[in-house]
Amino acid sequence: MTTPDLVTASDQVIEPNQDGQPRIPVAVLGATGSVGQRFVTLLADHPWFEIVALTASQSSAGKPYSEAVHWMQEQPLPEVIASMEVKATAPPLPCRLVFSALDARAADRAEVEFADAGYFVVSNAGSHRMDPDVPLVVPEVNPDHLELIRHQPYDGAIITNPNCSTIGLVLALKPLVDAFGVSQVQVVTMQAVSGAGLPGVSSMAMIDNLVPFITNEEGKIESETRKILGRANAGSVEPAEIVVSAQANRVPVIDGHTECVALRLERKVGVAEVEEAFRSFSSVPQVLGLPTAPEPPIRVRSEPDRPQPRLDRSRGGGMAVTVGRVRPCSILDFKFVALSHNTLRGAAGGSVLLAELAVAQGLVPGVRSPLGVTS
Amino acid sequence: MTTPDLVTASDQVIEPNQDGQPRIPVAVLGATGSVGQRFVTLLADHPWFEIVALTASQSSAGKPYSEAVHWMQEQPLPEVIASMEVKATAPPLPCRLVFSALDARAADRAEVEFADAGYFVVSNAGSHRMDPDVPLVVPEVNPDHLELIRHQPYDGAIITNPNCSTIGLVLALKPLVDAFGVSQVQVVTMQAVSGAGLPGVSSMAMIDNLVPFITNEEGKIESETRKILGRANAGSVEPAEIVVSAQANRVPVIDGHTECVALRLERKVGVAEVEEAFRSFSSVPQVLGLPTAPEPPIRVRSEPDRPQPRLDRSRGGGMAVTVGRVRPCSILDFKFVALSHNTLRGAAGGSVLLAELAVAQGLVPGVRSPLGVTS
Amino acid sequence: MTTPDLVTASDQVIEPNQDGQPRIPVAVLGATGSVGQRFVTLLADHPWFEIVALTASQSSAGKPYSEAVHWMQEQPLPEVIASMEVKATAPPLPCRLVFSALDARAADRAEVEFADAGYFVVSNAGSHRMDPDVPLVVPEVNPDHLELIRHQPYDGAIITNPNCSTIGLVLALKPLVDAFGVSQVQVVTMQAVSGAGLPGVSSMAMIDNLVPFITNEEGKIESETRKILGRANAGSVEPAEIVVSAQANRVPVIDGHTECVALRLERKVGVAEVEEAFRSFSSVPQVLGLPTAPEPPIRVRSEPDRPQPRLDRSRGGGMAVTVGRVRPCSILDFKFVALSHNTLRGAAGGSVLLAELAVAQGLVPGVRSPLGVTS
Amino acid sequence: MTTPDLVTASDQVIEPNQDGQPRIPVAVLGATGSVGQRFVTLLADHPWFEIVALTASQSSAGKPYSEAVHWMQEQPLPEVIASMEVKATAPPLPCRLVFSALDARAADRAEVEFADAGYFVVSNAGSHRMDPDVPLVVPEVNPDHLELIRHQPYDGAIITNPNCSTIGLVLALKPLVDAFGVSQVQVVTMQAVSGAGLPGVSSMAMIDNLVPFITNEEGKIESETRKILGRANAGSVEPAEIVVSAQANRVPVIDGHTECVALRLERKVGVAEVEEAFRSFSSVPQVLGLPTAPEPPIRVRSEPDRPQPRLDRSRGGGMAVTVGRVRPCSILDFKFVALSHNTLRGAAGGSVLLAELAVAQGLVPGVRSPLGVTS
Repeated sequence: MTTPDLVTASDQVIEPNQDGQPRIPVAVLGATGSVGQRFVTLLADHPWFEIVALTASQSSAGKPYSEAVHWMQEQPLPEVIASMEVKATAPPLPCRLVFSALDARAADRAEVEFADAGYFVVSNAGSHRMDPDVPLVVPEVNPDHLELIRHQPYDGAIITNPNCSTIGLVLALKPLVDAFGVSQVQVVTMQAVSGAGLPGVSSMAMIDNLVPFITNEEGKIESETRKILGRANAGSVEPAEIVVSAQANRVPVIDGHTECVALRLERKVGVAEVEEAFRSFSSVPQVLGLPTAPEPPIRVRSEPDRPQPRLDRSRGGGMAVTVGRVRPCSILDFKFVALSHNTLRGAAGGSVLLAELAVAQGLVPGVRSPLGVTS
Repeated sequence: MTTPDLVTASDQVIEPNQDGQPRIPVAVLGATGSVGQRFVTLLADHPWFEIVALTASQSSAGKPYSEAVHWMQEQPLPEVIASMEVKATAPPLPCRLVFSALDARAADRAEVEFADAGYFVVSNAGSHRMDPDVPLVVPEVNPDHLELIRHQPYDGAIITNPNCSTIGLVLALKPLVDAFGVSQVQVVTMQAVSGAGLPGVSSMAMIDNLVPFITNEEGKIESETRKILGRANAGSVEPAEIVVSAQANRVPVIDGHTECVALRLERKVGVAEVEEAFRSFSSVPQVLGLPTAPEPPIRVRSEPDRPQPRLDRSRGGGMAVTVGRVRPCSILDFKFVALSHNTLRGAAGGSVLLAELAVAQGLVPGVRSPLGVTS
Repeated sequence: MTTPDLVTASDQVIEPNQDGQPRIPVAVLGATGSVGQRFVTLLADHPWFEIVALTASQSSAGKPYSEAVHWMQEQPLPEVIASMEVKATAPPLPCRLVFSALDARAADRAEVEFADAGYFVVSNAGSHRMDPDVPLVVPEVNPDHLELIRHQPYDGAIITNPNCSTIGLVLALKPLVDAFGVSQVQVVTMQAVSGAGLPGVSSMAMIDNLVPFITNEEGKIESETRKILGRANAGSVEPAEIVVSAQANRVPVIDGHTECVALRLERKVGVAEVEEAFRSFSSVPQVLGLPTAPEPPIRVRSEPDRPQPRLDRSRGGGMAVTVGRVRPCSILDFKFVALSHNTLRGAAGGSVLLAELAVAQGLVPGVRSPLGVTS
Repeated sequence: MTTPDLVTASDQVIEPNQDGQPRIPVAVLGATGSVGQRFVTLLADHPWFEIVALTASQSSAGKPYSEAVHWMQEQPLPEVIASMEVKATAPPLPCRLVFSALDARAADRAEVEFADAGYFVVSNAGSHRMDPDVPLVVPEVNPDHLELIRHQPYDGAIITNPNCSTIGLVLALKPLVDAFGVSQVQVVTMQAVSGAGLPGVSSMAMIDNLVPFITNEEGKIESETRKILGRANAGSVEPAEIVVSAQANRVPVIDGHTECVALRLERKVGVAEVEEAFRSFSSVPQVLGLPTAPEPPIRVRSEPDRPQPRLDRSRGGGMAVTVGRVRPCSILDFKFVALSHNTLRGAAGGSVLLAELAVAQGLVPGVRSPLGVTS
């Protein structure tokens, strides 16, 4: 990688965090959309990162962020962000690390343009997830896949987090894969409307109703899961040999994807062992103590009627997965219910944790890890 | 069977139906509850049946129905019914055919009491469904099971229809069982709140939320499906050898249970053949032309996002099952979505169709079939 | 009026209705939208009218209706309609009577174009409601305003029905205006999402939420109410001297606008007299026996917790207004709750009833009233 | 007041707060219900108070709280609370200050019993709100009413906060009363389901529906508002001369009561002055810097479609009232929309703020104000 062609950032004042360290300047691409707003909320008080640029479409460029955005978060828009001038989505930007909340159409070209110009792009978009040399990473599951960026043709890099419904599934599968092996996964999702952005799903479809279909969702769950659980090798990923069969539904819930999972294990074990594998799971983000890492990453509930989206989605700051109802399946081996927050763990929060991991491992050129850790 | 000990029904004026035939007097046991109200609605204009008695708990006995009931149906309470005096739930009643909308606790004893006293009880309650000599019948699926009543110890009889989520599943399975054989069924249900009666599910649980659990539901789906698809023989039913694995969820929908099904067939076929099996399915109720029989019983939708509860639950007067999204499954053989109206086909409507079948087959002593058909 | 320049309708076969009379050919302008679909549903089985043409935007012209429309009604799309070829929204059309379900932007010009060409336009759009010479009519309230069309400059005519929330209000006010006089009306509406069409309101705004605002709605309620209750005279309407103050809210309900009304009467009366005025109200459509006229038009409920949208919106085929909770107001004189079905009485159904009235009064040139009545 | 007959609290370890001061021991009466759970959540991390006892019905006494409660809060149950043994709701308890989350039936006697025994009872129940000598207080509105307790016959005292829908209204009225005078208030509420507790409102009533009625609610809003805005004098309150006319509705929202208000002022002013009165409002809790006091207490939104429950209810930690849409009314003088969080500001949070006020004013015998302030 070469040094990106940054603008002179002489007017850029990065306030030190609580520990007195200077914070790392970052930008949010596509900052006015639904996911972009979540990024702004999460980064506004982040101990490592500080937003120095927000981009949007050409028509918003030049406006204060508070005018360009139709702010729809439950948290108020932070004042320091409200007055920032929105830029067009193109280099140069006064930072090396950029979060992409672009929609797939815009992301396809723009992310490559930034990566070519030397930026380190952490993307929530779907465009490049399945590119062979682009790491598709859940930090607790396959942190080692980040090494793929060495094979990318860019001066910078693109790293991605998966689709919102894949994240909850693969995080719940990981301890079982490690402990017992998993060969088959049947999953039926009941997904929240926030996953469709704004305006997203019509209220006519979500009052006294549900929709048993989400465009392209089932294919993403199936292929992304295999890539994430696969083995990175020589610049690409050999997918895992797990068979995944998904059925996706949209239900009248604001946040929180609920997934009914049935799976076949490679080794025969009991319910208690499965629950214990969930409970004792911990991984690289927890060991590193990354700021956004939930501890523990998987919560197991023993009540018969949990997890429920409204009651459990916010566990671990919205970054933990909650599982419940672990029980035998008469066709495969086990059934359980997994719940994760689709716009936190499943989108912006997942990207922020991923950026923390990349920074902690010294992968972002010119950016020193606040942990003093290098990969 | 012997003639039941009927009250003298001299004050009972049964109006002839459109064809000038006298209608068959019937009673509804437990008429003030949610299912009871549905019975009243369906029977109010029924071409064969006429309500002559309504029963409820002792505390309601003696009141006009309009005072005893908290009427919650979208159709207005028929005036002729409103003024009927509610009776206690005990023989004698001025009819031979009684519909039971009792809750399970009350049904357990009361239905036996009526059957002992010579009444023909068509029950929507769960109490006796799994009794060896009690037919558990979906008229399109296993009409032959009605012959079990010959083995019952009662002067009358008890026949039952299944749990609301079983009905939609088993009706969708039947054509596939007949045409190709079915060995394994994974089903995840998303069930409407009306299935829980009144007051039923708290609104606190159904706004921005769902509940991945319904008490005893999964076991009912699994065992009832095997009984219904089994073979009646010598006074009991040999269950079908199908393995069913169910996961039940409650979702914010008023009426209409949606079920995501994955199944393994015994014979390998294509999607087109599966859809054709659904489309061409017809059975005894359709052949007999029973008043409540939907024609055809299974509707196949080709749009990618159907069936949806609000848009499809009322097909065939709420008596048809709608299926869609028939597609291959990478673990079992096929996946599809099935939808049925849980309080019509899945409860009161299913019981009414079942009574029509029993009457048409001459099984109700002292009641002549309006079709002139005898079994 | 002159005879419109109709296309030769030689291929047009109008089936006679049950009474053996030929039905009146009609067209629906803007037939693919949400209101257009409601028109199709209502007209499909209408005893007087028969759809002979459906129009939509240029991009849909030439397609079968079933392909041009994304059918979202709970009733299935009638087969005879499904195969009709959609036309562009412009004359000529093979009929004299056209229903306009156009959105306001399209309606502005198109309705004038049709009226100029001699068509009799019954419009649900807002564009011309407040034109001085255009009658804005609720058939039970101000049928006499139809005479305004004599002052229109068109060869044909334009008549309109009001905004969905105005209709319910003004119909409830009418008996009180007639009996006691009404001088002030405070109204707070809680309006269903179907009033916003498709996709309409985002589900993000309607789960665990409401929106206390609907663009332009409050002004429409205030001005339309005064026009409808005003006096038609010499080609325009002198508005009634009622002061109306409206507050409009959008709530998570599919169909049915609920309105909390407080009003000042000109004559002091008791609750019983107010309720009796509602109950005994009847008007021209009831006297004429128009097919879509509800009988009675206003239903009074005595339960403390009614009307409720889901339970009461379908009274009188969705054409009746239900009122309840009539009680004194400590500031004005009385308070009550009124409910009406916003897409039936408040939109397509209101237009159909209006067309029936115009036909019955002999106002549609070349169309004879099935009632044999002339104005 | 005399010293209450406290249990020896030798085993009671009250941890000091951040500032090193010992915290004030408190109990929650009726701790397992919906409001009780909110109290537990709010008091778990309170800088002044520490829960030392939790009470419930006799059947729960002796159990650990985690077993006695069906925990339904979005925040996890704090571990230190989970293991506390639930006591029966009767003196003695090891503290002087008790919060009452009892339902009205239980509160009627129990609160008097505690007050007689020398406890200082801060009650969210409705039982004693309208007792002449019981202060009904919103801390920003009528803190001076607390002096009424000097006239109470108890060794301890009872103070109360109002009904959830009254609080939001009266807090919004207060600045206008002070600045301009208010003579008439029309209010239509759209209230969240959490106000009805658990199980509360049936989901059958809250999907595709609303209910235009809440038992006794309108009367409470009318009479409580007059008492709170009245003048405490010689042991009772002379109600304010404001005429309030309320209409209450239940809508499908989890938390947050929205109120459409129209009012007549005694002095004629413009919209800008009304908005400025809201914006500049501050009161005793803000001046004292009470821990739970929102600053500012009233938020004014300028967007046309705000406030909305989901987006605005959590302002000021759920303790602020948000107003919007301030505009002229053609019948009274102004209309606006007010929103407040019904289970925080409108229930448990309101009680906690009220207790802070009483403590800060030195009214709780034996308890020193952490502020060093005495009344």
